[in-house]
Amino acid sequence: MRHSNPPIHKAPIEEFRIKTHDLPRGFTFASAASGIKKRGGPDVGLIASDRPAAAAAVFTTNRVQAAPVVVSRAHVGRCAGRMRAIVVNSGNANCCTGRAGLTTAQLTCRLAAQALECEEAQVLVASTGVIGVPLPREKLLGALPQLVSSREGTPRAFAGFARAIMTTDTRPKWAAARVQMGGRTARLLGCAKGAGMIHPRMATMLAFVLTDAAISPALLRRAVRAAASRTFNCISIDGDTSTNDMMAVLANGESGVNIQPESGHAARGFEKFVAALEKVCLSLARQIVADGEGAQRVVEIRVEGTCSTAEARKVAETIATSPLVKTALAGSDPNWGRILAAAGRSGVAFNPERVRIWLAGIPVFSRGQPLAFDERRAHRAMLAQEFSIVVNLGAAPHGQSSKPRPAWRVWTCDFSEGYVKVNSSYRT
Amino acid sequence: MRHSNPPIHKAPIEEFRIKTHDLPRGFTFASAASGIKKRGGPDVGLIASDRPAAAAAVFTTNRVQAAPVVVSRAHVGRCAGRMRAIVVNSGNANCCTGRAGLTTAQLTCRLAAQALECEEAQVLVASTGVIGVPLPREKLLGALPQLVSSREGTPRAFAGFARAIMTTDTRPKWAAARVQMGGRTARLLGCAKGAGMIHPRMATMLAFVLTDAAISPALLRRAVRAAASRTFNCISIDGDTSTNDMMAVLANGESGVNIQPESGHAARGFEKFVAALEKVCLSLARQIVADGEGAQRVVEIRVEGTCSTAEARKVAETIATSPLVKTALAGSDPNWGRILAAAGRSGVAFNPERVRIWLAGIPVFSRGQPLAFDERRAHRAMLAQEFSIVVNLGAAPHGQSSKPRPAWRVWTCDFSEGYVKVNSSYRT
Repeated sequence: MRHSNPPIHKAPIEEFRIKTHDLPRGFTFASAASGIKKRGGPDVGLIASDRPAAAAAVFTTNRVQAAPVVVSRAHVGRCAGRMRAIVVNSGNANCCTGRAGLTTAQLTCRLAAQALECEEAQVLVASTGVIGVPLPREKLLGALPQLVSSREGTPRAFAGFARAIMTTDTRPKWAAARVQMGGRTARLLGCAKGAGMIHPRMATMLAFVLTDAAISPALLRRAVRAAASRTFNCISIDGDTSTNDMMAVLANGESGVNIQPESGHAARGFEKFVAALEKVCLSLARQIVADGEGAQRVVEIRVEGTCSTAEARKVAETIATSPLVKTALAGSDPNWGRILAAAGRSGVAFNPERVRIWLAGIPVFSRGQPLAFDERRAHRAMLAQEFSIVVNLGAAPHGQSSKPRPAWRVWTCDFSEGYVKVNSSYRT
Repeated sequence: MRHSNPPIHKAPIEEFRIKTHDLPRGFTFASAASGIKKRGGPDVGLIASDRPAAAAAVFTTNRVQAAPVVVSRAHVGRCAGRMRAIVVNSGNANCCTGRAGLTTAQLTCRLAAQALECEEAQVLVASTGVIGVPLPREKLLGALPQLVSSREGTPRAFAGFARAIMTTDTRPKWAAARVQMGGRTARLLGCAKGAGMIHPRMATMLAFVLTDAAISPALLRRAVRAAASRTFNCISIDGDTSTNDMMAVLANGESGVNIQPESGHAARGFEKFVAALEKVCLSLARQIVADGEGAQRVVEIRVEGTCSTAEARKVAETIATSPLVKTALAGSDPNWGRILAAAGRSGVAFNPERVRIWLAGIPVFSRGQPLAFDERRAHRAMLAQEFSIVVNLGAAPHGQSSKPRPAWRVWTCDFSEGYVKVNSSYRT
């Protein structure tokens, strides 16, 4: 029996060394240690745009939403065409903190706006950290003047910002891309924090992407949704989703590269922009999974041979969040039975007699039967920092064969003792 | 502000010392070491009824079903009124083992039936252990004659059976109850194995309950469904569901206690029987959670103040399976923010401003605001072997106030480093 081996996404996880020419023009960055984090270290950051920027953002879908999410959502609604800054703190999520927390988020925007000489609604605010503990307002507000006055458009200042938003992350995450059009270059630069409470449907983390391309808020929103659905919404660390998370993109137009809707000559411009944005988001998303709490490896779960993309997604997400699958990944154990059992409880109908499974490129199960394979070789392959699991459920394709067949991929990490260690003592 | 403190289920986890008068009459038990378990020890067991017994069973809802599930389901369908025996092996799940695995399950019933002088379909078969490895048929079949010839109706033989079905369980689980009617006594005695792949909707474990009450197969089925829905279907260890699990009840009538449908004088008899069956199942279910892989404590998650029972159940199950909640439980960390965040992603609509939360009886959150509470006292209370978390979502009750308000409870355990340790090296 022959097994077609589906293509495996092999790109390594990039480690960016940020350079001056990666920086989009017209943005400045700052960070500081305000004392919000008990253990000290940088915990507040600022991104500012020299001129009003188009803004688009996606927010957590959790019913419980932190004060900065409530405030930033309203501000994007009011000032999507002329955003000026983002203020972020780590160490405290300012969530479930009642009326006082909401006031703190509003005052943060107001004081930053005063220092930057703009309106309150032209500032976004984001927080990450412990839930339900009042955010020490005076510490955050007290740090604002220093953030505003010390901001710089340098790689070092950007790297400082990327570090200041970290919580249990072990390393900062950033990614860059470019769009070239008509002899001009627009730059995209993003950073993110992740580590815990990471799961699909944009309830995942903080991510900020800056670009000096010129684009309307409406078009930027379309680009952000397209990119997020194929990147941040395809990763899982623990299946939990947060109350605070947002991804925001600012586009200030400084490069002179003008992104138009897909019509006539300019069509390629929007495609290129979305591709560049997706590249940045995918890199950030994979860096987040690779730095999952206690994670040793990133595993791509690819599901195909389903009747619909929705089915493929459901199966992939069930496998990607199964504690039994994820603990087997921690031990590099080629335990395909747990993968099949997870697919079996996903709620998607399939015939086990038609299923095929590959672990790190090795066929291990086909049409209801385990295949003979070298367990040691499989174990070694699963020690890699990155590999793929492919599950084909064997549904016959419907309709025209020219249509792309339904498939979905999710990136997950292993579930190690380190995850438990980090999370059982997070506040103590 | 005053907080009504909802009643907390305080019953301890029973440790039964099985006695002769707990044994239902007319049942015998046996166990043996067949060599299926690599590390040795008892791994096959037999339950036999002296005379044909009414049988009812519930099976895993996983799409991937092991060979013994397929065979036993068919046998219950054909011989619900005259079952004679149950053969169980541990150490190998006989799942995803193709045609050969199905033949092994069928041959097991056939050879046991020959030795017991009954029909093949009067025997149930169950397996638990690793998936996808061929079950060494000759070892299981070879042990059958010894099982049949050595069977005894003694506490010791029953305890041996309860031990033989264990996998990563650290202790056997059993429970007993009685029904008294018209001066006669019927006995119920059950045992179970659990430990991993434990989650609601009857895809949970192996459980067998034996009774010498007389009851029709149809009525027994009703009783089993009622009891399972409030016990085995309300526990979770890791959210994973197995391919093999079943709960089977045999009722052989030896006691002369006759359970009739709820009509006329006999009504109380059926109620009493269901209550006794539920008592046995609840004890077994809680023993399973308490012995969850790596578990240090059993936590009851009680959700109320929803618009429907289905909503309460969805929220309770989301909280009960959240890795962040469960790791906080491992550290006895009163981190109610994670509980609220899990409720928020459950898909159930609610207003966070109306939510109230109690941890181990201590009010910690009320109507959008964290309450001041003694964190050390809460931590100490959460070190207990058993406690409750109560979440009231604050939905106003509809209709008549005399109706019971929607609520659901789920028993879960903490997620410790021990769970990861057990499961990352399960096969290696």
